[in-house]
Amino acid sequence: MLYFDYGAGMPVDEQVFEAMKPFFTTHFGNPSSLHEYGDAVREAVEAARAQVVSFVGAGEGDKVVFTSGATESNNLALKGVARRARRRGTHIVTTNIEHWAVHTPLKALEKEGFEVTRVPVEPNGIVDADAVADAMTEETVLVSVMFANNEIGTVQPIKEIAERAHERNIPVHTDATAAVGRILVDANDCGADLITLSSNDIYGPKGMGALYIRRGVRIEPVMHGGGQEWGIRSGTENVAGIVGMGAAAELAQRRLTRDIAHLSHLQTKLIDGAFEAIPDTHLNGDRQQRVPNNVNFLFDYIEGEAMLLSLSNYGIAASTGSACSSKTLSASHVLSAIGQSNEEAHGSVQFNMGRLTTDDDIDFLLEKLPPVVDRLRRMSPLTPKGFFDR
Amino acid sequence: MLYFDYGAGMPVDEQVFEAMKPFFTTHFGNPSSLHEYGDAVREAVEAARAQVVSFVGAGEGDKVVFTSGATESNNLALKGVARRARRRGTHIVTTNIEHWAVHTPLKALEKEGFEVTRVPVEPNGIVDADAVADAMTEETVLVSVMFANNEIGTVQPIKEIAERAHERNIPVHTDATAAVGRILVDANDCGADLITLSSNDIYGPKGMGALYIRRGVRIEPVMHGGGQEWGIRSGTENVAGIVGMGAAAELAQRRLTRDIAHLSHLQTKLIDGAFEAIPDTHLNGDRQQRVPNNVNFLFDYIEGEAMLLSLSNYGIAASTGSACSSKTLSASHVLSAIGQSNEEAHGSVQFNMGRLTTDDDIDFLLEKLPPVVDRLRRMSPLTPKGFFDR
Repeated sequence: MLYFDYGAGMPVDEQVFEAMKPFFTTHFGNPSSLHEYGDAVREAVEAARAQVVSFVGAGEGDKVVFTSGATESNNLALKGVARRARRRGTHIVTTNIEHWAVHTPLKALEKEGFEVTRVPVEPNGIVDADAVADAMTEETVLVSVMFANNEIGTVQPIKEIAERAHERNIPVHTDATAAVGRILVDANDCGADLITLSSNDIYGPKGMGALYIRRGVRIEPVMHGGGQEWGIRSGTENVAGIVGMGAAAELAQRRLTRDIAHLSHLQTKLIDGAFEAIPDTHLNGDRQQRVPNNVNFLFDYIEGEAMLLSLSNYGIAASTGSACSSKTLSASHVLSAIGQSNEEAHGSVQFNMGRLTTDDDIDFLLEKLPPVVDRLRRMSPLTPKGFFDR
Repeated sequence: MLYFDYGAGMPVDEQVFEAMKPFFTTHFGNPSSLHEYGDAVREAVEAARAQVVSFVGAGEGDKVVFTSGATESNNLALKGVARRARRRGTHIVTTNIEHWAVHTPLKALEKEGFEVTRVPVEPNGIVDADAVADAMTEETVLVSVMFANNEIGTVQPIKEIAERAHERNIPVHTDATAAVGRILVDANDCGADLITLSSNDIYGPKGMGALYIRRGVRIEPVMHGGGQEWGIRSGTENVAGIVGMGAAAELAQRRLTRDIAHLSHLQTKLIDGAFEAIPDTHLNGDRQQRVPNNVNFLFDYIEGEAMLLSLSNYGIAASTGSACSSKTLSASHVLSAIGQSNEEAHGSVQFNMGRLTTDDDIDFLLEKLPPVVDRLRRMSPLTPKGFFDR
């Protein structure tokens, strides 16, 4: 089956897996133990941390805290900073296209008494930095804007937002899950104070993530316990997972230029090819300010779920919306946010590419897409009369 | 180096690792995805859940929720139940020998306005079920007592405590991290409503755990996001970790009788041998109500840290206290709780055995222990005059 769902899950890179192996059965100590077994794994954990530090461009005094994944990193960043700042203010600014892993923790904070302003994005799927700045008040203690959207791939103006927030001494968090490994995510470059990093999204193991925390950012723990990770994230370290994420980060950093070139080439080929072969096709999200792995099409008059089924019959795995919400029938909040009607949102299909995607894969997809769309349009009551006579 | 620190970290069983392997590089889909890649891993996750359900004896309507480890399971159980019950009451009962992963979340709940009663254990390291019952009030919404202590191995009367709590409709949580795989931890048998399970403690991967939740227990999530695990624990599933924990649970269940016999034999040999060879030696914690992997000695007049160093020179890795607190110099709160002075607590050393520990290992340890203790006592200012002439 041809896999076009790299946004949902990625294979662990073979080199990464090789690096992890010894930490399951051979080096099994606890990094906190004061003997040889502890020493060996403690060194491995710190070497992996150095790899992630380099990957995200962390500076002196900044911290990279390992977590169980992007969801936990987001929970830690949002709740940890907001609760810690509660006496100074209770207002948070975000957008209306965040992933559930940011949206839902913010809902939880609203129940705790915080007020959240969700700045709407423009029709191209990008939030206006001025609009975000305008939403900031004297009460604002945190701004959280995703680096790139997981459904439509749009890259947000984090640097401009961080500049505007820093004028008011407000820390900025960015969920970079859908950006890491596809574009440069660098703390200095983007200026964010907290950056959520996902391991699986850079071909590292699932169940692993990290949170970059800039020096001086005040944060309290969400998970309490033995005081690991500077007391910010307790729990015995997932040594193999950490080693894997470190190796994946090093690989991603080294390969970034190559990966971007490869993905951009495939992306252009797929978008141009589909536009040429299929009438009434739209690209959701800005074409330029976009991560190179993501293509999200709206094919007028048909349903995304029917598309997925038909593609599946040809051995093609794609998706509508995010994997997390794939079991719900409600329309994607991201597509609604860029102005799509329920009907339109239900007609959108997303193709996510990765390191292993080839030119041949795109050729195959471009061969199958037109007849699938054509067939579904012929069956659809939404297709205008006379459409096929045009 | 001879490893006597199985409480701090365990090797992943080779069979378990074999079961995990395909889920790194081959079956890398997201369990929420609605295509073949999703199907394969979703089935694997549910098969693993069934293995843990069987291991812990979960009944119909009960849930086993996968987490990133025992610390997260404890945080979820304690905060999830307490916060959900807040309008009914704000009192929690626990003991004074809990692990940091219970103690610290409870401290956090105290800051949120909860009141925590820490019932002291008896000098044998076991809490009296009546004392726990006496601490319950109309305001009590949760009782949390560890199944077995991680430092001195004492097994707590969970069944009696659960009976007493259930008379008042109070749910009982137990952290079974130091008990799983060493004695039977069965939901029906012990009656607890929430059970923290650790993967690494049954030779599964680190960074994995589970929380057993009895049908009808009201709990709110701590980690918010995509709504995985019935919305109780969000975050893309750590598929390989889950598969590993499942395989480890099945193995632990199948091997339990054998593992107990093996460990009990080694434990008896070590305790009897040390008592015979070394004067003024004490066993911390009850000898009978004790997990079979744990031996915790107090050798009068010497320091535990000096012991560890000396043992380390003979290639023996042991520990004082828990790994989590190994970097702090304060005396173990568990040893203080059983009435030891600071000096005595600093003189205690813990040996944790596992599946790979052999009779030869115990022989070697029993050969080295007496001269090490003797040498340190000769150097110690605490040794009474005339001690060596007795």
